[in-house]
Amino acid sequence: MSDMTPSLTTGVPRETLDGESRVALVPATAQALIKQGYQVQIETGAGLAAGYLDEAYTNAGATIVSNRSELFSNSDIILQVRAAGANSDNYSQDLDLLSSGKVVIAHCEPLAEPEAFRGYADKGVTLFALELLPRITRAQSMDVLSSMATIAGYKAVLIAANALPRMFPMMMTAAGTLKPAKVFIIGAGVAGLQAIATAKRLGAVVSAYDLRPAVKEQVESLGGKFVEMELDTGTSEQKGGYAKEMGEEFYRKQREMMSKVIAESDVVITTAAVPGKKSPILVTAEMVQGMKPGTVIVDLACEKGGNCELTVNGQTIDSNGVKIIGPKNITSTIPDHASEMYSKNITTFLKNLVADGAVNINMEDEIIADTLITREGEIVQPRVREILGMT
Amino acid sequence: MSDMTPSLTTGVPRETLDGESRVALVPATAQALIKQGYQVQIETGAGLAAGYLDEAYTNAGATIVSNRSELFSNSDIILQVRAAGANSDNYSQDLDLLSSGKVVIAHCEPLAEPEAFRGYADKGVTLFALELLPRITRAQSMDVLSSMATIAGYKAVLIAANALPRMFPMMMTAAGTLKPAKVFIIGAGVAGLQAIATAKRLGAVVSAYDLRPAVKEQVESLGGKFVEMELDTGTSEQKGGYAKEMGEEFYRKQREMMSKVIAESDVVITTAAVPGKKSPILVTAEMVQGMKPGTVIVDLACEKGGNCELTVNGQTIDSNGVKIIGPKNITSTIPDHASEMYSKNITTFLKNLVADGAVNINMEDEIIADTLITREGEIVQPRVREILGMT
Repeated sequence: MSDMTPSLTTGVPRETLDGESRVALVPATAQALIKQGYQVQIETGAGLAAGYLDEAYTNAGATIVSNRSELFSNSDIILQVRAAGANSDNYSQDLDLLSSGKVVIAHCEPLAEPEAFRGYADKGVTLFALELLPRITRAQSMDVLSSMATIAGYKAVLIAANALPRMFPMMMTAAGTLKPAKVFIIGAGVAGLQAIATAKRLGAVVSAYDLRPAVKEQVESLGGKFVEMELDTGTSEQKGGYAKEMGEEFYRKQREMMSKVIAESDVVITTAAVPGKKSPILVTAEMVQGMKPGTVIVDLACEKGGNCELTVNGQTIDSNGVKIIGPKNITSTIPDHASEMYSKNITTFLKNLVADGAVNINMEDEIIADTLITREGEIVQPRVREILGMT
Repeated sequence: MSDMTPSLTTGVPRETLDGESRVALVPATAQALIKQGYQVQIETGAGLAAGYLDEAYTNAGATIVSNRSELFSNSDIILQVRAAGANSDNYSQDLDLLSSGKVVIAHCEPLAEPEAFRGYADKGVTLFALELLPRITRAQSMDVLSSMATIAGYKAVLIAANALPRMFPMMMTAAGTLKPAKVFIIGAGVAGLQAIATAKRLGAVVSAYDLRPAVKEQVESLGGKFVEMELDTGTSEQKGGYAKEMGEEFYRKQREMMSKVIAESDVVITTAAVPGKKSPILVTAEMVQGMKPGTVIVDLACEKGGNCELTVNGQTIDSNGVKIIGPKNITSTIPDHASEMYSKNITTFLKNLVADGAVNINMEDEIIADTLITREGEIVQPRVREILGMT
């Protein structure tokens, strides 16, 4: 190996959040890192819930470490699925194992739970939050939010199909023709588009809504119908206070349209999340009342309060026969593929971070500047500082 | 209404088996019967678990009866999802409500649980078991086994996809290409073919095996790969006792081939049922040991002992990370469509049974002759009589 090769040790601890089944590095990516010259250490059982035995890591050239404290002290760079606010209950135990100069890369919930960063700063840890990756082409292959949204959109449809008392596809049988399920997807981001694709694959009639009319083409290219609002702008124009009235009119019309489409749907999947904020309520209790018994709502925004007024995170609520499902940590239910994608994301991030065998905090690189949370005892991320009132 | 119209009353009791969510008649088919001149009486709440409120039946022109005993005494013909041996724990309570001359049409488990028929015969009930419908063209639209197998094959794939830690379709993402799931279907009857179709829809790579080489074309037309055995008949020919040796050689080769395909699969769905008999064991404990952790078996034969040696009906077993799922009464998990299909089947059967406003037991009609179990105090079905040693 050349002198250009990093001689860094990356450590992968077992995830400690209850119900978290993913692992930050799968054996195949561990092997790729080792080929690049890294040492890779894995805490015993770290991959087990995702289906990867210690043996698979050993075969890939990694070292298994049974003592978590030892793993942290051996490692230059710690790769986790969840650190800081993304693991609020348990991250402080890891703080005790961290020391100045260690680099941690993980999901951190940087905007919703920024208080957790004070501990990392105090320890002198260099912490990166992958949620803050800029949405630029160069960062696409590191984009954990997209990866996990792909998984979530797929699984949301399976959860809905499993809960529905009807089948998704139209079936022409000797016992008559069965109508296909009507599926309505709210929000056509990565999760929404994957949900559209999956529901179409299963044979449902799919419609979708998004505030951004620009996604219409994407929805249609997947075979979905884009639901449009007919806004009677004529009426609004005659009134005073144009902009404000227009706003109210817009939201009223939106609610009306939503109520109508939701009442006709067998399945509603909501995917509207605002980073770091409480999710907007798009499906009211009243709209749920308009749904038929046996219909199903899957609320992918459940961890941030939900898009449906009745959603409870991690539970299935029955409201007059309508099931409202809040699938907590949904990506952990497909831990193998989720870990595979996450591994790829985090190692691509790592490759960009390390130059000539050392961590290189190049603040000219927006990938690094946007995701860097703490460094040399300080919380440095501008948006996080603003939320914490540190400006 | 003309004089040709039946003036018969059909009664639909609430199903009493624990976990049974289907109903023998949905409101739409109730309405169709009423148009033909039938009276339709429904026990309070009979459709609730399938998503049909009493109100929906009332709107269809049916009468809701709160007293089960009254419902039975009012009805000429009782339509049930489960009677006799298909509801072993509870059918005897219905026997107390039945009297001579009543007609009952239902699933009855005629070959596995024939003892139950003695009570029906003693009561003088005319009982039809829909499982015994002949597989002739004219009976296709009555064929409850096909209808329910369609539901079961579809749902088996959803259950598997939900349990699998990977996604079914190949996905080309910014975080790399994810391999599609490999799904192996054993048995290419109605359930198996529907499972193939559903797994293909979801994007899996599907292979299937069936003892009958004739189904190869059907498997392939759905996009599945038909797994064939290479039988070294040359070797067998040199030995004595040809037929027997060939048989042993065949089963050994079958097990070898199965072991190999199963070890490479992410999902195995077994659908091999023999009417009235214990299901054949096709997936041994040893074959399960050869599977990767995280893989899934869904055993549709679980109610008859299972096609997998480790299956437990109604449970999910974990064997070294392999999930073996025995989905008890799977059609009841899609009760709306299952009831819709069952309704259509049973009313088509009824239409064939009733002529000029009366039940017409035409023993020249094989649909009637094959399904008729008890009549005028006797068990009359030849196969049932044989099993009971009554010949």
